[in-house]
Amino acid sequence: MERFRFPVTVRYLEVDAQGVVFNMWYLGYFDEALNGYLAHCGHPYPKLIASGTDVQLVHTELDYKAGVRWGDPLVIEVSTARIGNTSFTLDFQAKVGDTVACAASTVYVTVDAKELTKKRVPDDLRAGLLG
Amino acid sequence: MERFRFPVTVRYLEVDAQGVVFNMWYLGYFDEALNGYLAHCGHPYPKLIASGTDVQLVHTELDYKAGVRWGDPLVIEVSTARIGNTSFTLDFQAKVGDTVACAASTVYVTVDAKELTKKRVPDDLRAGLLG
Amino acid sequence: MERFRFPVTVRYLEVDAQGVVFNMWYLGYFDEALNGYLAHCGHPYPKLIASGTDVQLVHTELDYKAGVRWGDPLVIEVSTARIGNTSFTLDFQAKVGDTVACAASTVYVTVDAKELTKKRVPDDLRAGLLG
Amino acid sequence: MERFRFPVTVRYLEVDAQGVVFNMWYLGYFDEALNGYLAHCGHPYPKLIASGTDVQLVHTELDYKAGVRWGDPLVIEVSTARIGNTSFTLDFQAKVGDTVACAASTVYVTVDAKELTKKRVPDDLRAGLLG
Repeated sequence: MERFRFPVTVRYLEVDAQGVVFNMWYLGYFDEALNGYLAHCGHPYPKLIASGTDVQLVHTELDYKAGVRWGDPLVIEVSTARIGNTSFTLDFQAKVGDTVACAASTVYVTVDAKELTKKRVPDDLRAGLLG
Repeated sequence: MERFRFPVTVRYLEVDAQGVVFNMWYLGYFDEALNGYLAHCGHPYPKLIASGTDVQLVHTELDYKAGVRWGDPLVIEVSTARIGNTSFTLDFQAKVGDTVACAASTVYVTVDAKELTKKRVPDDLRAGLLG
Repeated sequence: MERFRFPVTVRYLEVDAQGVVFNMWYLGYFDEALNGYLAHCGHPYPKLIASGTDVQLVHTELDYKAGVRWGDPLVIEVSTARIGNTSFTLDFQAKVGDTVACAASTVYVTVDAKELTKKRVPDDLRAGLLG
Repeated sequence: MERFRFPVTVRYLEVDAQGVVFNMWYLGYFDEALNGYLAHCGHPYPKLIASGTDVQLVHTELDYKAGVRWGDPLVIEVSTARIGNTSFTLDFQAKVGDTVACAASTVYVTVDAKELTKKRVPDDLRAGLLG
């Protein structure tokens, strides 16, 4: 499906003594991009919760390829990589122009919003994630 | 009263592109030191909440005097500056050795832990803060 | 002068266990707004540095008035409060609609960008800050 | 080899609206633990830099297994998983008692401290990492 693009503002405080964004902040950026992506797919997080489904990050892999500096126009591209029975996987690319600074693959499980027990990915969420 | 001393570990990620701790993190350090101080005064935060009292930061003033670097052995000194009817003020000094890097004066109001409405500083908390 | 308005995106990770933005993050927001304001005044930070002047935060006072939640459309309003010989003071208001969540008054000194010694506020920066 | 154990203090600000440590902070904890581990292995980071070698995180995988709350006595266990020609891999486990909250496997490349170009893992660092 078409790539969803989510712009992120790098904060000065996120840049470390080496002058580039410290590695952990990408997980913060991707979390914001996840929410933008869910909304883009027709399932904004508050609506998802209200419908009885929550998502939990259970696994993520990150590859760091280039540094990002304060002021760089960072964009997070998000796409659905896989939808399983009780989980789905998203791919993230943090890019400045055409340069990929950090790429990630992240697995979320769908859980009951109250009990926090695993549940099947609801059909409408599944359809939304498939675009 | 005797100064309470609370050691804090500076994290690499808290150091900015200029090589010193970014200004906002001191509020994080002071928040940890507040909790250490409350425990030191006989009122650990969970006990305070259980007794029906919560504290809310309503005002803080910070003076920045010297930079702190990663690896510096930072200690936060805390003392009670004033206890009013529904609030109390603590003084904080973030020090490396004898050098004060940042000094703050912070006002907390005491509130009902459930209603979050202002309440009188309980007598036992008052006594604890006075040492 | 007219209020400069700088929108800020609250990140989920900035919201604490009480469901509102943790107090320290406002200093991060105000730092971003400072840079937006400097650019708005005709002195973007890189240009300022290139011209031989840097600014250092030496004092800040914050009043916390209301909680901000994830998803709230936060805007930082910035205005020049005072310009002295070697320092200037900015006022910040973090607002959601008409509600002020946090107000701050912050003093910056101007320093030589290399020596980091105090210097007079340059005339062109002074003019820019006065609008 | 024997597990190196590095205690970490969870800060209140690192706990999110769900009452548990937000996912990204583990990368901050592991970064601190890396430095503790390097020192434990006889190669404290400043000494490593002075000897002409720096390390760069290029890949990390994290599995999230349980939530950590404010006040939990968190310990990071670190061990060497593999040493290659120009990289080494460390395993991290963030534990509260016997419960693993988050496990990670992280690849670092060794680079020339000035040129930041890849270099062979120096023999003495290699020996240190092998214990």
